[in-house]
Amino acid sequence: MSYQPPVRDLMFCIEHLSHWDKVSAMEVYSDVDLPDIEAVLEGYARFCGERIAPLSHVSDELGATFDNGRVSMPEGDVEAYAQFVEMGWQALIHPPEYGGMGLPRVVGAAGVEMLNASDMSFGLCPLLTDGAIEALLLTGSDEQKETYLEPLIAGRWSGTMNLTEPQAGSDLGRVATKGVRRGNGSYGISGTKIFITYGSHDLTENIIHLVLARTPDAPAGPKGLSLFIVPQKLVDADGTPGTENAVNCLSIEHKLGVRASPTAVLEYKDATGFLIGEENRGLEYMFIMMNAARFAVGVQGIATSDRAYQRALAYARDRVQSRPVNGSAKDAVAIIEHPDVRRMLLRMRSLTEGGRAMAAAVAGLLDLAHRNEDPDTMALVEFMVPLVKAFCSERAVEVASLGVQIHGGMGFIEETGAAQHYRDARILPIYEGTTAIQANDLLGRKVMRDGGETARRFAARITETEDALAQGCATAQTIGAALTQARAAFETSLDWMLDTSRKDIDAAFAGSVPFLMLAGTLAAGWKLAKGALAAETSRQAGQDVEFMTQKIATALFFAQHILPECSSEQIRIVHGSRSLLDAAFPE
Amino acid sequence: MSYQPPVRDLMFCIEHLSHWDKVSAMEVYSDVDLPDIEAVLEGYARFCGERIAPLSHVSDELGATFDNGRVSMPEGDVEAYAQFVEMGWQALIHPPEYGGMGLPRVVGAAGVEMLNASDMSFGLCPLLTDGAIEALLLTGSDEQKETYLEPLIAGRWSGTMNLTEPQAGSDLGRVATKGVRRGNGSYGISGTKIFITYGSHDLTENIIHLVLARTPDAPAGPKGLSLFIVPQKLVDADGTPGTENAVNCLSIEHKLGVRASPTAVLEYKDATGFLIGEENRGLEYMFIMMNAARFAVGVQGIATSDRAYQRALAYARDRVQSRPVNGSAKDAVAIIEHPDVRRMLLRMRSLTEGGRAMAAAVAGLLDLAHRNEDPDTMALVEFMVPLVKAFCSERAVEVASLGVQIHGGMGFIEETGAAQHYRDARILPIYEGTTAIQANDLLGRKVMRDGGETARRFAARITETEDALAQGCATAQTIGAALTQARAAFETSLDWMLDTSRKDIDAAFAGSVPFLMLAGTLAAGWKLAKGALAAETSRQAGQDVEFMTQKIATALFFAQHILPECSSEQIRIVHGSRSLLDAAFPE
Repeated sequence: MSYQPPVRDLMFCIEHLSHWDKVSAMEVYSDVDLPDIEAVLEGYARFCGERIAPLSHVSDELGATFDNGRVSMPEGDVEAYAQFVEMGWQALIHPPEYGGMGLPRVVGAAGVEMLNASDMSFGLCPLLTDGAIEALLLTGSDEQKETYLEPLIAGRWSGTMNLTEPQAGSDLGRVATKGVRRGNGSYGISGTKIFITYGSHDLTENIIHLVLARTPDAPAGPKGLSLFIVPQKLVDADGTPGTENAVNCLSIEHKLGVRASPTAVLEYKDATGFLIGEENRGLEYMFIMMNAARFAVGVQGIATSDRAYQRALAYARDRVQSRPVNGSAKDAVAIIEHPDVRRMLLRMRSLTEGGRAMAAAVAGLLDLAHRNEDPDTMALVEFMVPLVKAFCSERAVEVASLGVQIHGGMGFIEETGAAQHYRDARILPIYEGTTAIQANDLLGRKVMRDGGETARRFAARITETEDALAQGCATAQTIGAALTQARAAFETSLDWMLDTSRKDIDAAFAGSVPFLMLAGTLAAGWKLAKGALAAETSRQAGQDVEFMTQKIATALFFAQHILPECSSEQIRIVHGSRSLLDAAFPE
Repeated sequence: MSYQPPVRDLMFCIEHLSHWDKVSAMEVYSDVDLPDIEAVLEGYARFCGERIAPLSHVSDELGATFDNGRVSMPEGDVEAYAQFVEMGWQALIHPPEYGGMGLPRVVGAAGVEMLNASDMSFGLCPLLTDGAIEALLLTGSDEQKETYLEPLIAGRWSGTMNLTEPQAGSDLGRVATKGVRRGNGSYGISGTKIFITYGSHDLTENIIHLVLARTPDAPAGPKGLSLFIVPQKLVDADGTPGTENAVNCLSIEHKLGVRASPTAVLEYKDATGFLIGEENRGLEYMFIMMNAARFAVGVQGIATSDRAYQRALAYARDRVQSRPVNGSAKDAVAIIEHPDVRRMLLRMRSLTEGGRAMAAAVAGLLDLAHRNEDPDTMALVEFMVPLVKAFCSERAVEVASLGVQIHGGMGFIEETGAAQHYRDARILPIYEGTTAIQANDLLGRKVMRDGGETARRFAARITETEDALAQGCATAQTIGAALTQARAAFETSLDWMLDTSRKDIDAAFAGSVPFLMLAGTLAAGWKLAKGALAAETSRQAGQDVEFMTQKIATALFFAQHILPECSSEQIRIVHGSRSLLDAAFPE
């Protein structure tokens, strides 16, 4: 089964949902137009669909292997990665002064989706490299940028993020790795880091580790962390990788999914590191990067969902089983004819396209926020990033599970491929901050801190879309009514949250994940509804009628089948906190 | 992490929810009392917890292996199975005249849960043997019973069900395996069967295959299927296994989960088979057994859920991470203190106990229906079995996924064990009839056929519980209000279904799975609510106060967090059919 990158829908989302008028008006993107973007995406789509997608199942079977401190990647991955470098795909959104293509994030998001749908294990390496590039761009010194950015943006070197330690997962304040000033400008880094994605591999000439560690005199807790560059090979004066640094890969994990992505335990034994920015500001720098990284994981969710959907759709068209329940045929038909298979497929499709629509909108906001300092845009981005991360990752698990179900018994057999998505998707609600961490972030930093101001602005924007829907066709009105009800559930929950957080903080946080999922579902439904309005206009103009008709159909399905979940979440939030907090767990 | 069989809750369910007064009043169970049952369950619990549970992770790693037509089980399984036979656990519910213990199904269900929670891969072998025993008891000739029942009930031989073929999964009418009369009383069976659980293994002296096949002159479709006994080794006159039959294991599957359970492709090459009952009645016989088999898969769901819950609970107590959000401690606390971890644990617990409560009630009905012919009881069993199967299996996937989430990054590492439940659980909504098949069965055979009469009786019984709750304490009244709303959602959906099925059969079936899940969730909430009433009485009498308090807490959580989902399902059913049926899937 081949993967068909959804370039048509990605372009639709960029054109109609990513605030493209504002993004394209930015000085820095003044020479980028939609046909250019489409051409780039078509090229990347070919590479992803033809070169990477066929590898994913084989590489998952083979897995990354560990032998005596060295990690070997499946041979196919090594070859494909070399081609990835040769074609320069790592450069997509990075600045031209270091060899990047300088395209906006709305394009980058589309690229991340296509690559990760092709093979999430493969996609993780460039994703982590993007993170390291982002960190260096935002917080590195000029010399550090000179040294590291060009080979990272070229994809010749890769990047890692070293946060987690056995005792420090969600709670980074407990990081114990040490960074000791040496006097020569470098630091000696010592400690053990776990769960390091692509912490060791043989795809690139060098690996640039970004490491959270603590200087000897640093305050305890999260405010005593500093961020260090620790190259796997120290960089010689001519810019080439030289002496091996004292960073050892002790093992890689035996994981449920993304098995071709090596997850390393790294031991730093007085390894040479270089401070980024100032001491004790490491966590702050991590937070600057976090929006991009969490957003990217959300996009991985969309990617996995779409791959699972495409696979299930192909199977449902192919598999013949049972007569139709309406008696319209005497013989068995393709299972896509059966209402419940349609239900599952449409659920997969609407959750996937809902995530994509929301991600396109947020990618546009990231572009806008990145280059200007409009506080409202910044605040809305901050508010929406946890929604993208949580909605797209949690829904990816659900979508992948439906994909298995549509395959019946064949879905449980690894050769079919549906099971791989179910395994791969499961990491998404965990890494880059679990769903609960996203919920704490949303509630604590983005709702309570400004007294709900941004959340109310979010709701007000949705009301604008409701008004437009009310002026539209009958379908638009139906979508609008469901959106109104979901938005009202959000506002009721918001009022309750703001009130309760002042009186009973535990009760508020008892509803944090339901609140996050309510907001995420609402946001996806909102963006699909906006898309439906644009699609209706195009359809009436006779443009791409079949595609536009299905955009509207997806939005309607989402409104009638997914948006009602917002009301259940509201009940949980508003009425469910005491039963949650009062229950005990006796031994 | 060790598994603690939930004997206390199993006994609570038997005593208060399984219609124990009526079951124990049956002639055949006149000498069984609750202390006896508890003693048996305690004994089985020790075997399951101490002997089987420690194997499951190791056996999953090793898997069943195939070499040159022979399947080898992990060594630990071979030894444990020998002990299972020695202790006679296969005999639990089977008739004393063939060596059984003759205990009621309410006890059998508890046993199936404990064994499958210990190791679902291991539990599948006795589960299939139970199915074969059931088939022979109900439809076998006296001679067949004499030959096969004693060694099957002793567990010395195992049983299989051979239904599926590559082109015939949910659609058994397409079965092509042939059974040709030989004139000597036997039949020559030829064809290929796939997905045969424990189709080949080295745990027992013999394997008794029950095979659906078609005689040469049989009508096409489902009404031309006959059921045959095909022993792997033909049974000699003295009752011992002799000559190998022409049944070859061609391969076993590489599966997502239950990896220590061999799933075989079996080739029958003019193998010797013996007709059960009459020709062309095979599917009818399968249907007779189906209630028991589908019920058992539901119980596997409860089992997997409970194991996942226990593992997550232990981890949440042990893992220290982050300070409490309410500022009650300066240091990090065990994550069970964090509201969202509590939310996930309570969701797991209430879904598990909800399934168990419902299963106990249905097990009691199965006992009552098995021995008498009261048509109302039969109809209610028939109505509720798909609810048990679908609710417990679909929820097991959700519960296992939450179990991974609670473990954070560790959940994604196979060594931790949480991932195994997530993999294992995924087969449950597929085998013994997918959730869609259960939904078709419920809607077509059990709702539409009697014009909703049984469904209304089901709703009326719930109303009785609502009345009792209204007389209870404040918590009981809160539970009652949620139950009333969920039951109303069911009745509204039922009315719509009955009306729509007359006018637009596709629209009715578009809501079949939502209707099934609504009914299943309602049934679980109902039985938990009944349990809460019993628990309140016990608590007021000072009996087992801590346990009873938590039974009430679980029911309340279910009422406030799970039952609201019934309203979303109602909206999907009543308003969602057109958007589902009208959407297209363009190439």
